[in-house]
Amino acid sequence: MIEEETLPFEAHLELRAQSVEALLRRLLDERILPGEIVRPGTLLAAMRHGVLNGGKRLRPFLVLESAALFDADGEAALRVAAALECVHCYSLIHDDLPAMDDDDLRRGQPTVHRAFDEASAILAGDSLLTYAFDIIADEATELPAQRKLDLVLGLSRAAGIGGMAGGQALDLEAERKRPDETGIITLQAMKTGALIRYGCEAGAVLAGAAPADRERLAEFGSAIGLAFQLADDLLDLTSNAETMGKATGKDAAAGKATLVGLHGANWAQDQLHGLVEQAHLLLEPYGERAALLKDAASFVANRRN
Amino acid sequence: MIEEETLPFEAHLELRAQSVEALLRRLLDERILPGEIVRPGTLLAAMRHGVLNGGKRLRPFLVLESAALFDADGEAALRVAAALECVHCYSLIHDDLPAMDDDDLRRGQPTVHRAFDEASAILAGDSLLTYAFDIIADEATELPAQRKLDLVLGLSRAAGIGGMAGGQALDLEAERKRPDETGIITLQAMKTGALIRYGCEAGAVLAGAAPADRERLAEFGSAIGLAFQLADDLLDLTSNAETMGKATGKDAAAGKATLVGLHGANWAQDQLHGLVEQAHLLLEPYGERAALLKDAASFVANRRN
Repeated sequence: MIEEETLPFEAHLELRAQSVEALLRRLLDERILPGEIVRPGTLLAAMRHGVLNGGKRLRPFLVLESAALFDADGEAALRVAAALECVHCYSLIHDDLPAMDDDDLRRGQPTVHRAFDEASAILAGDSLLTYAFDIIADEATELPAQRKLDLVLGLSRAAGIGGMAGGQALDLEAERKRPDETGIITLQAMKTGALIRYGCEAGAVLAGAAPADRERLAEFGSAIGLAFQLADDLLDLTSNAETMGKATGKDAAAGKATLVGLHGANWAQDQLHGLVEQAHLLLEPYGERAALLKDAASFVANRRN
Repeated sequence: MIEEETLPFEAHLELRAQSVEALLRRLLDERILPGEIVRPGTLLAAMRHGVLNGGKRLRPFLVLESAALFDADGEAALRVAAALECVHCYSLIHDDLPAMDDDDLRRGQPTVHRAFDEASAILAGDSLLTYAFDIIADEATELPAQRKLDLVLGLSRAAGIGGMAGGQALDLEAERKRPDETGIITLQAMKTGALIRYGCEAGAVLAGAAPADRERLAEFGSAIGLAFQLADDLLDLTSNAETMGKATGKDAAAGKATLVGLHGANWAQDQLHGLVEQAHLLLEPYGERAALLKDAASFVANRRN
């Protein structure tokens, strides 16, 4: 038997992804919860299509590892991780709609509105977003009530008008009105940064960690959120649809303003190095226990798809 | 000065609507909350368009009156009422989309995707749904943590796949595959019944009322939810677009199965009387204090628009 510690980072990521996937599969089965009447088959299938699709489960990984850093309950952390993934997947389903980014492919598979129809995709996204709060609030998530409320509140702020959804609105506006550098940074901090930051912070919240630890993890999340977006912009420039499992080169084609477009690929590589260094420095106080989270920062900056 | 008790029901409804509207206006201003980055102007305007539109605020009324029945804190009840209205308005915005019911008018005004665009309407709905959980979980809602969690959980169950969103999915399916009577009842209990039931139950939850009271109010909500839908189906048959402020006669035109279509208008009138009687009976134990809630049942059954 191979000891877990000797595995490469990708194998750790994959192990956590399997746990999250198993829970998501259970959460999205046909059994109804108290207060539910029925789970209509087509809608449930559309939700499963949008969620159970072999994603890397990076955001759940961040929840699980930051929770482990502060010895939070593993089962509760897994449920919060699954809730966050539901929000991430809802956002992808809605972003892919014809009225938004109009994408036919996601991870090499037809997007939800292509595999089903637009109405089902809208409702599947709505239902996943709603379900995320259910998963956290449910008694099966064994945490003190106030911590669960903090997790609900953090998730709604990260996902709503002042976070992810607001960032998507700014992104759509940016196609008409090119934002300046500050505008791009704000847009990206909201559109992709907010949920990643929340994922890292959530682990500390789950464990009832000290405010300083919570803030440190949130800052770590902000750094890798920025790195994630820079790497994404670089990939859009250099990769192809086969590697990415989705359409690429769209930013340039759409004339979309990105920091990479503004400053060039070399500048972006330098920035990425700086952000990884900053992320590692933030975790210094936790020593070896934070090794996997540090690896996650490097992974995000260097990923190839 | 006119004493409140001598006012007709509609005036009471209007008074409560004004309080709810004032709070919604404050909640949807440009000030950001901790954890939010910015509130993009266009998205905020689309949310306001979908919410601040002179609605009757029936669901908030039910929250406020059922909360008052058990002496719940009025300010907390108002916030929960506003949260429920955000969920109701999100559902209208998404239902009106071209991929769903494709409506151009709502309360005599252009729907959100007509006044703005489809992407803004999708994101405005998403953001309102997200915000509803924020409003309940926020510390400004002064309630014990476990009660707030119960309210979050109840709202997510009422709005999600096993409630309103699932009901909308069944409704879309019903255009292809005519449901039988049981199917129609399930569909309506989910699509319109679940949120109305939740509104009535939420008052009891807010106050920490006994489980029997909570169940009684929920049953009251189910009865008036059924009455609401029957009255709606009758109105669709007999009213016109001018009175309703939205397109009418659509059910028959779409060949949509309704209980009114199945059993006729006279049967529906008899049912309505029975439901109102049942609703009043459920509130008997609360005597005169429940007078306005009883009036609400009659109002729902007899409304003309």
